[in-house]
Amino acid sequence: MKASEKTDALEIKALTFDVFGTVVDWRGSIIREGEAFGAARGLDVDWARFADQWRGGYGPSMNRVRKGELPWLNIDTLHRMILDDLLDEFKITELSEAEKDHLNRVWHRLTPWPDATSGLQRLRERFIVAPLSNGNIALLTNMAKHAGLPWDCILSSELAKHYKPDPEVYQTAADLLGLPPIQVMMVAAHPGDLLAASAVGFKTGFVPRPEEYGDQRNRDLEPDAFFDVVANDFNNLASQLGA
Amino acid sequence: MKASEKTDALEIKALTFDVFGTVVDWRGSIIREGEAFGAARGLDVDWARFADQWRGGYGPSMNRVRKGELPWLNIDTLHRMILDDLLDEFKITELSEAEKDHLNRVWHRLTPWPDATSGLQRLRERFIVAPLSNGNIALLTNMAKHAGLPWDCILSSELAKHYKPDPEVYQTAADLLGLPPIQVMMVAAHPGDLLAASAVGFKTGFVPRPEEYGDQRNRDLEPDAFFDVVANDFNNLASQLGA
Repeated sequence: MKASEKTDALEIKALTFDVFGTVVDWRGSIIREGEAFGAARGLDVDWARFADQWRGGYGPSMNRVRKGELPWLNIDTLHRMILDDLLDEFKITELSEAEKDHLNRVWHRLTPWPDATSGLQRLRERFIVAPLSNGNIALLTNMAKHAGLPWDCILSSELAKHYKPDPEVYQTAADLLGLPPIQVMMVAAHPGDLLAASAVGFKTGFVPRPEEYGDQRNRDLEPDAFFDVVANDFNNLASQLGA
Repeated sequence: MKASEKTDALEIKALTFDVFGTVVDWRGSIIREGEAFGAARGLDVDWARFADQWRGGYGPSMNRVRKGELPWLNIDTLHRMILDDLLDEFKITELSEAEKDHLNRVWHRLTPWPDATSGLQRLRERFIVAPLSNGNIALLTNMAKHAGLPWDCILSSELAKHYKPDPEVYQTAADLLGLPPIQVMMVAAHPGDLLAASAVGFKTGFVPRPEEYGDQRNRDLEPDAFFDVVANDFNNLASQLGA
C-alpha cells in the first residue's frame, strides 16, 4: 500500500510542524548571524559552539518550567536567560540591552531548510498547515513573516502553557483546530516529538534532518515502521500525501 | 497633523481586526448561502430575517458564558445552539446532522467586504495583521483559507477564554504578540470593541461598515475624535497608515 493510499484513508485535515530543526536550520542561522555580529564588534567567538550551547540550554530550562521550579515562561524569556549566561561564559561584555535583545531575537530570524517553503506551499493546497512549536506565538509569527512561511495559523506550546512533549500541547492544538487528533499529522525531525503526538492520537510524519547538528554529530535517523509516513523533505512529504 | 504622522509617532507594530461585520459581510453571506440551501430543498424561508436572528442570538449567548451560566463554549458551539432553536422556529425540519453541521459552518465561509483582502495585503507589508475575533481559531483559520485573507497569525477570544469586550481578550492578544498594547491598533466597525481595546491601551482604527445590517437599519456611524484613525475602508486605512 502506498503512503498516499494509507493517509487518504486516514482523512488527514491538518498538518502540524515542529519548527526548530524540522522547518528551520537554527544552527546554521545562528552561526551565520553570530559571525556577522561578532565581526562587526571584533569578537573572537566560536559561534558553532555558542549555537550548540544555546540550544543545549533549551531542554533543561523547559524542564525547570515543567517541574514547577519556574513559573510559565515563554521561549523568548528562556532563550534570554540562557543567553545571559553564555555572554558571561564567552566573555562577550559591553553589549547594550538593545543589542542583547536583538541577539536574543535571532530565533525569530532563522532560515528555513531549502525545501521547507515550497513544500509547505504544496501541502497548504490540500491541508491546513500550522507550526506546533515550543517557540512562542510572537517568535513564530515574526519568523513566518521574515522567512515567508505560508502557515494557515500559528499554534504553539504557549497556548497550552505546557512544553512539548507534554500531551496538553498536542491536545490543545487539535482542540483549537476543531479536529479529532486522528485527523492531524504531526511532522517532525525528532522521534520523541512524534511519539508524544502519537500517544494523543495524532498521525506522524518523520522528516529526518541529518544536518541539524552540523557534520560532526551522528544521530539515529533511521526510518521506523512506527511512523505513518517517512519523507526526506517537505516536497517529498507533499508527494506522498497527494498534495 | 496627518494621520500617518500621528501613527508613525505611535510606533504601531501590529493591527488586530474585528472580523464579523468589519472584515466579512456575515449578513449578505448567510442570505446568499441560505437562499441556495433553501432552493435546493424547497424551503420557503426569509433568510434575511434568519441571518438577523442568528446574529441576534450571539450577544445573549456570550453573556450567558460571561455570567457563568454556561461554561466556556466556543462560537461554533454557541452558533449551533442558536441554530437549533432557529430551525424549530422557522420550521426547517428533517435536516440530517451533517446538513445542520454544514449550515452551522456557514460562519467559516463568510465573504470579505470588497476592499478587505487588498487592504490587508497592503497593511501586511508594514504591520503584523491578525484577526482578533470572538470567532474560534478553527472558524477563523477556515475562513482565511476559504476567502484568501492574508493573516500573519490567528488570534481569537478563544485564547483568553473570554469574549470581547472583556479586557482579557485584548491583553492576551498583546501578550501573545509580544507587544505592549500601545503598539497594537484594534480595527473595527463597532465603537464598543474599540472603546474596550482602548481601555487596555490599544490604539484604535474605526472603519464603519454602513451596510453591515442591510439597507433597513440606520446606525450611528459618525466618525468620532476618540478614535486614532477613521477610514472608510481597508485601503484607505492602509494609505493613512503609510502602508
